[in-house]
Amino acid sequence: MHGVSHPLGRKVFYWLDLLGVAVFAVSGTLAAGYAGLDLLGVVVIAALTAIGGGTLRDLLMGRHPVFWMRDPNPLYVILLTALLTMLYVRVYPPPMGTLLWADALGLALFALSGAQIAEAARLPALVVVLMGTMSGAAGGVLRDVLTAKVPLLLRGDIYATAAIAGIALYLLLQAVGVRRPWAFGFGLATVAAMRGCAIVWPLHLPVFRL
Amino acid sequence: MHGVSHPLGRKVFYWLDLLGVAVFAVSGTLAAGYAGLDLLGVVVIAALTAIGGGTLRDLLMGRHPVFWMRDPNPLYVILLTALLTMLYVRVYPPPMGTLLWADALGLALFALSGAQIAEAARLPALVVVLMGTMSGAAGGVLRDVLTAKVPLLLRGDIYATAAIAGIALYLLLQAVGVRRPWAFGFGLATVAAMRGCAIVWPLHLPVFRL
Amino acid sequence: MHGVSHPLGRKVFYWLDLLGVAVFAVSGTLAAGYAGLDLLGVVVIAALTAIGGGTLRDLLMGRHPVFWMRDPNPLYVILLTALLTMLYVRVYPPPMGTLLWADALGLALFALSGAQIAEAARLPALVVVLMGTMSGAAGGVLRDVLTAKVPLLLRGDIYATAAIAGIALYLLLQAVGVRRPWAFGFGLATVAAMRGCAIVWPLHLPVFRL
Repeated sequence: MHGVSHPLGRKVFYWLDLLGVAVFAVSGTLAAGYAGLDLLGVVVIAALTAIGGGTLRDLLMGRHPVFWMRDPNPLYVILLTALLTMLYVRVYPPPMGTLLWADALGLALFALSGAQIAEAARLPALVVVLMGTMSGAAGGVLRDVLTAKVPLLLRGDIYATAAIAGIALYLLLQAVGVRRPWAFGFGLATVAAMRGCAIVWPLHLPVFRL
Repeated sequence: MHGVSHPLGRKVFYWLDLLGVAVFAVSGTLAAGYAGLDLLGVVVIAALTAIGGGTLRDLLMGRHPVFWMRDPNPLYVILLTALLTMLYVRVYPPPMGTLLWADALGLALFALSGAQIAEAARLPALVVVLMGTMSGAAGGVLRDVLTAKVPLLLRGDIYATAAIAGIALYLLLQAVGVRRPWAFGFGLATVAAMRGCAIVWPLHLPVFRL
Repeated sequence: MHGVSHPLGRKVFYWLDLLGVAVFAVSGTLAAGYAGLDLLGVVVIAALTAIGGGTLRDLLMGRHPVFWMRDPNPLYVILLTALLTMLYVRVYPPPMGTLLWADALGLALFALSGAQIAEAARLPALVVVLMGTMSGAAGGVLRDVLTAKVPLLLRGDIYATAAIAGIALYLLLQAVGVRRPWAFGFGLATVAAMRGCAIVWPLHLPVFRL
């Protein structure tokens, strides 16, 4: 989907990325449901949550056309996922526990793949961290802004922080000679693990209040 | 204004497009008035409503410079419209009925012309629908976000839905061999008619509430 | 930082621009503190306030990569400034008076430098005014949207208005034959002075209320 060679093999990566899209689309659909939006609103919020971060990254990096314009499969995944999610929650309660864990995996995937894209464009390390974090976390911010909330991301919780740590580790390991596939794996695991800890225990960044 | 050849003739299209800008600028000006913004705020909201959708489309498609940079006439139309609207409502009550119908026409025009631009760039059909809908409806979303509301678009009402239906018909008719000018006309009429029905009768998409 | 030759000399301009970034980062950090965000939220809001306007300008003008991607120094300035600000206000009260004046200088610098970039791209005068004003004032709008407020800019206060006036004067003086460095200086002084007056006296644009 992103047109860069990838340590896990491009095929595997493509499917993992679509999985990430699906997970984020579920989270967007549920958020839209809690805000009481209509069917179209649901699809819009699902799409913004799932591809908003990557779209912002592509815009900032000047990658045209934006990734889902070349290959609209992410869009079909979003439509299908939103539909299935709405049907599912008519029968069963929303699987919030499972969702949180799937979301942690989605964050890890998007953060590391976004970082790789910025790395391939030879951007400075700090910008690589920023682009990766944005790919993983900006969709949720857009979701919150559109439903008129102060973005969750900005209020507490270890979320983007996990992405930052994992990407930093990925760059650091490569700098000390670790090969890219291994660095990628360790980075991925770090994001997922840190986010997982924040799900299990009430970890928060310190709040700055005036 | 958009640099693509156009079935209605480029001149006619250019003026229709400026008319759409004016209509949306009126709607933005009134929204700013209800939010109690100052003169500059009025102009900003009028401009975002009128050219926000097309600007977003141009950014996502990588069309540089953005349409109103090459030809700033839409900007002058916005300034003039905002001014006249503010003067008008000092004397007469806001013509909400007329405005709704003019807005339906604006939506139809922007949706179909946006779709055509995406079509000319040979984007996939789903992306054409998305770009057209965004051209027509995203300005109103920006207006609502900037005045700190949950966007109207996401909460109910047939609006973007009308754009989606009209653009889909436009593509479908061409696929079965109807010539572009006719397909364009039918698409335009569909958007305006669906939106018109939603003005007359309380039509809503089903709401998804958790 | 912007890759255009500059009347004050490129070196001086570069440092002045970083100073503007620092000032806006302080203002973003304080806003985040009043909204009770966490450390990461503070950095995000500080960054959006400081480089949001210039980033939007670069996106709209199709300048890729965006300015802070080529040279990440503004990002380091933001990180450092946010940190120092948080430490400072643990000990001393926020220096709101000083900050307002520094912000006036930042606005003037960003507005004029943004206008120059648009001027160098030979955009129409109205678009030059718009790009400059956006460079100076859009960061604060993003800050307010992200903390779920109706942007201050839209509600009152002479702010963007000062930028518009200063840039218009800059263009006007050049049109009547004044040399660019002088026009730049007069424009800069006008923005800062108008903003300064609005700090000292309660000046507001008329409000349009329906």
